[in-house]
Amino acid sequence: MRHPAKVRIVEVGPRDGLQNEARPVSTDVKVALIERLAHAGLPVVEATSFVSPKWVPQMADAAEVMARIRRKPGVSYPVLVPNMRGLEGAVAAGAEEVAVFAAASEAFSRRNINCSIDESLDRFAPVCEVALAKGLRVRGYISVVLGCPYQGEVAPSAVAHVARRLSGMGCYEVSLGDTIGVGTAGKTQRMLEVVAREVPVERLAGHFHDTYGQALANILAAMDLGVATFDSSVAGLGGCPYAPGATGNVATEDVLYLLDGLGIETGVDLPLLAEAGRFVCEAIGRANASRVGRALMARRPVDAA
Amino acid sequence: MRHPAKVRIVEVGPRDGLQNEARPVSTDVKVALIERLAHAGLPVVEATSFVSPKWVPQMADAAEVMARIRRKPGVSYPVLVPNMRGLEGAVAAGAEEVAVFAAASEAFSRRNINCSIDESLDRFAPVCEVALAKGLRVRGYISVVLGCPYQGEVAPSAVAHVARRLSGMGCYEVSLGDTIGVGTAGKTQRMLEVVAREVPVERLAGHFHDTYGQALANILAAMDLGVATFDSSVAGLGGCPYAPGATGNVATEDVLYLLDGLGIETGVDLPLLAEAGRFVCEAIGRANASRVGRALMARRPVDAA
Repeated sequence: MRHPAKVRIVEVGPRDGLQNEARPVSTDVKVALIERLAHAGLPVVEATSFVSPKWVPQMADAAEVMARIRRKPGVSYPVLVPNMRGLEGAVAAGAEEVAVFAAASEAFSRRNINCSIDESLDRFAPVCEVALAKGLRVRGYISVVLGCPYQGEVAPSAVAHVARRLSGMGCYEVSLGDTIGVGTAGKTQRMLEVVAREVPVERLAGHFHDTYGQALANILAAMDLGVATFDSSVAGLGGCPYAPGATGNVATEDVLYLLDGLGIETGVDLPLLAEAGRFVCEAIGRANASRVGRALMARRPVDAA
Repeated sequence: MRHPAKVRIVEVGPRDGLQNEARPVSTDVKVALIERLAHAGLPVVEATSFVSPKWVPQMADAAEVMARIRRKPGVSYPVLVPNMRGLEGAVAAGAEEVAVFAAASEAFSRRNINCSIDESLDRFAPVCEVALAKGLRVRGYISVVLGCPYQGEVAPSAVAHVARRLSGMGCYEVSLGDTIGVGTAGKTQRMLEVVAREVPVERLAGHFHDTYGQALANILAAMDLGVATFDSSVAGLGGCPYAPGATGNVATEDVLYLLDGLGIETGVDLPLLAEAGRFVCEAIGRANASRVGRALMARRPVDAA
């Protein structure tokens, strides 16, 4: 098995995670979480989403979050933007990086954003153009790359098509999301082999969910093919909207433990990261979905608990 | 990454799992669980342990369990024996396979069985001899192969020493246990490379705990080196005695999902296995620690729930 010397972890807990938490989260907690994550050494902390509060009330305080966080030099704080209006909000809030998204399955695209994949990409093209013209970096997400809750199987060629278009629109990186966590190591490699023919592997990221417990195995499989950027969510924030009670985003702590064990450089400090996970779980009253987080807390001496 | 065409899963839930559950489990539930696991296609179901009920009250009904299970042809039902008296009980109960055990760390050996590693092996030698003379198969377990709760690091050479001795005593297979789940993929491979110089990889099994979420990644790493037998526990039964609240044995459902996804033959049926996991969790009133188990149950139509 091969693996890279360095891996870049993209922390998505404050956005992708908290967006899918049923519990309301105060702006204070969001700001404190983002700052703790940056302090732990994460190079990228996805901070919030400039979406309509009608659709995503959890992110209604996007501008306030961006205004209040003390930005650590060298750390990127991308924000999700669904359209031009979102981009305007992001720019006004001083975002330096934005993320756009599309699905790899037509059924998922229609159910989630009410248009075809190509229509969604056509809408994002001018958003990317304006963002790039303003000097922002743009990252692309593709969801349901290893399976769709509505149509089942997703062809690697469909993922490759969307990846090529996002890349062509100027996304510096395309994050491949196993949104429902059904993928396994073999499927991950088969998909990546096809997608890497369209977008160089250096510009691909893996975004795995742990719904079926496969995320770390999939990361290992992706690293074996040269992928060196992975999205994850501290404490496994987010859950799985398609399987209530099941696990969602892979926990950053679990990913870091794997990478540390392989001697892969990330710049992230596990104790500080685990402490950020403990903090947010206590603040919002949820169980810690990181196995590493739980194990480390169980090991803490009682007088330090 | 390489992987074998076939993998043999050794189900340890009814013994290693239930032995570490605080909740009392009736003989009825144990018998029903063992039969469901065999029905799901598992080739080996570790059934119980012939240990002193003073030390392990959970296994006090060992003889009754063995008397009551309807044995499925072709399925092995090994039982753990700590000494000659345990072996006598196992033989009287009609066991055809027994398991013996030793630690890879001196500190763990002294704390758990109050003697050195070599002393424990010397005590098992006659047990193996008698078992083999009576026509039983003997399997060996080694615990704390990737880290010890008392001494920390464990040298691969120490694991290799114990593996060689167990193999020399007639164990047809040596199961390498990461008892506290601290191992990672890289460490797993480094340990296996050393141990495989003493015992052929075809006679080694991996026994991983998911305390830090690494078990499937470790299995992938072990398969890459040719290991084709893995121990696991349905529904993740057992927990981790060294980190209360943390995860213990890797869940069989999660392992099977990985193997199915890689197209590896196991003979095990995932829906039947997941149903066995659901059954035992409901029967003993515990949460299902298998991510696959939880995800599949979350997907069940409400009217079938």
